[in-house]
Amino acid sequence: MKIAFVGTGVMGKSMAGHLLKAGHEVVVSTRTKAKAEDLLQAGAKWADTPAEACRGAQVAISMVGYPQDVDEVWRGPQGFLTTAAQGCILIDMTTSSPALARELAQAAQARGCAALDGPVSGGDRGAREATLTIMVGGAAPDFEAVKPLFAAMGKTIVLQGGPGTGQLCKLANQIGIASGMIAMSEALAFAHATGLNLETTLQSISGGGASSWALLNLAPRVLKGDFAPGFYVKHFVKDIGLALDVAREQKIQLPGLELAAKLYDQVVAAGQGDLGTQALARRYFELR
Amino acid sequence: MKIAFVGTGVMGKSMAGHLLKAGHEVVVSTRTKAKAEDLLQAGAKWADTPAEACRGAQVAISMVGYPQDVDEVWRGPQGFLTTAAQGCILIDMTTSSPALARELAQAAQARGCAALDGPVSGGDRGAREATLTIMVGGAAPDFEAVKPLFAAMGKTIVLQGGPGTGQLCKLANQIGIASGMIAMSEALAFAHATGLNLETTLQSISGGGASSWALLNLAPRVLKGDFAPGFYVKHFVKDIGLALDVAREQKIQLPGLELAAKLYDQVVAAGQGDLGTQALARRYFELR
Repeated sequence: MKIAFVGTGVMGKSMAGHLLKAGHEVVVSTRTKAKAEDLLQAGAKWADTPAEACRGAQVAISMVGYPQDVDEVWRGPQGFLTTAAQGCILIDMTTSSPALARELAQAAQARGCAALDGPVSGGDRGAREATLTIMVGGAAPDFEAVKPLFAAMGKTIVLQGGPGTGQLCKLANQIGIASGMIAMSEALAFAHATGLNLETTLQSISGGGASSWALLNLAPRVLKGDFAPGFYVKHFVKDIGLALDVAREQKIQLPGLELAAKLYDQVVAAGQGDLGTQALARRYFELR
Repeated sequence: MKIAFVGTGVMGKSMAGHLLKAGHEVVVSTRTKAKAEDLLQAGAKWADTPAEACRGAQVAISMVGYPQDVDEVWRGPQGFLTTAAQGCILIDMTTSSPALARELAQAAQARGCAALDGPVSGGDRGAREATLTIMVGGAAPDFEAVKPLFAAMGKTIVLQGGPGTGQLCKLANQIGIASGMIAMSEALAFAHATGLNLETTLQSISGGGASSWALLNLAPRVLKGDFAPGFYVKHFVKDIGLALDVAREQKIQLPGLELAAKLYDQVVAAGQGDLGTQALARRYFELR
């Protein structure tokens, strides 16, 4: 299958690599060509713009940073929709706005194309090991048509409903992560302050009722002082903002999410927006 | 081995049952004899008081509700320490105060006995399936001596340090659970409010970066409207209070824990203290 893939950052690079390995013809395009170098050496083709990448592709995937980037990649003057062939399935795997996903689905339909929103969870490791969770919104036949591609990149692949529901589900996921990061940070901060051995504490609390993906995957990084981005603080702050927007529209109170927004704003204010989300733990304590 | 076991509530009953099945002589005592009926039928012996249960026992275990109950079971007029033989190892598996654990260890030592604090995590299911996490504070030789008993009741069994460190580790665990319950409740509330299918949402968010014990074990109960106690709200409120006490002593700020304290106080105020901790989700939404 010929696949356009736009956005080869921490996540996109691994994901496009899995599609290549599965034997597909992958044409990549990304803002910083150097970030696509490994993929090009592994056999991917290069295109200067999303429009070029999408020419003649059966599937076009975006995995970029912010909703405005998604919009640009799809509807911009050099976007997918300027060249997409009839019947092309366009998939946005960025975590983005549910409302934008619905708009893009209409725009794709107007051109005789199909659209899916398929944001992912599982971080850099999930992307590398092809164990991502992929939450999909769109029409069932389109979902079935590209399911083998999703299966090359992820493990838990679920169609949630119509356009935008993949993004809504992803925001529900981010809401879970938000308080989950507070949980991990505060448990470790308490252990540190009370003089517990952090290694054995983590061993104990990872196995019981407090167990979480964050404790199992990110807490060990905190203990090593490793704050490199698996998932960027700045992107998480965007996700939290998207979730808060929808919560306000729906008039629901999410005080844990609001607390996470406040704490992560402090992380950004401290100049740590380019670190991984585990940097929240530093708001609470720093290992000496 | 002859073991005294005091407290046969939701958790204690399963735990004492595993010791029985492992071939030990178990003497139980509990406030409400009816709650020990199954154990007595399975071969446990009955004692009217902790003191009676402890007479001639090599190990005496308490698994009760509150720190004051622990104190009564150990140091009260009918407590373990009135009859405990020299060399007896006393273990408190209740989640209780770290300071009390240190005091009880001294009281035990004064009588020629040993003491361990060994609170557990994993809820009713962990207790039933003998997969509990057991966090132990005390001396290494005493820990080694009773490790086979812990192994009959749990899976992740770690000595954290001296007296009280088992309790401190458990409080770190409860701090993780506190924000973890907010995470689960808010993710489901958001999904509910935005019209997502809760079953497929849960399927997606249980597998990625938001995954947690609460999502895997308690969220399905929320979806079924099952708020029966695996772990009582009223006991969790006690644990949160113990953790906040230590946090104040150590002068550390834990805003997520404070939020959980506020939200769970509302659950209690709504007369739901005898429900399971998953009842927090009802603060956010109720399925129709």
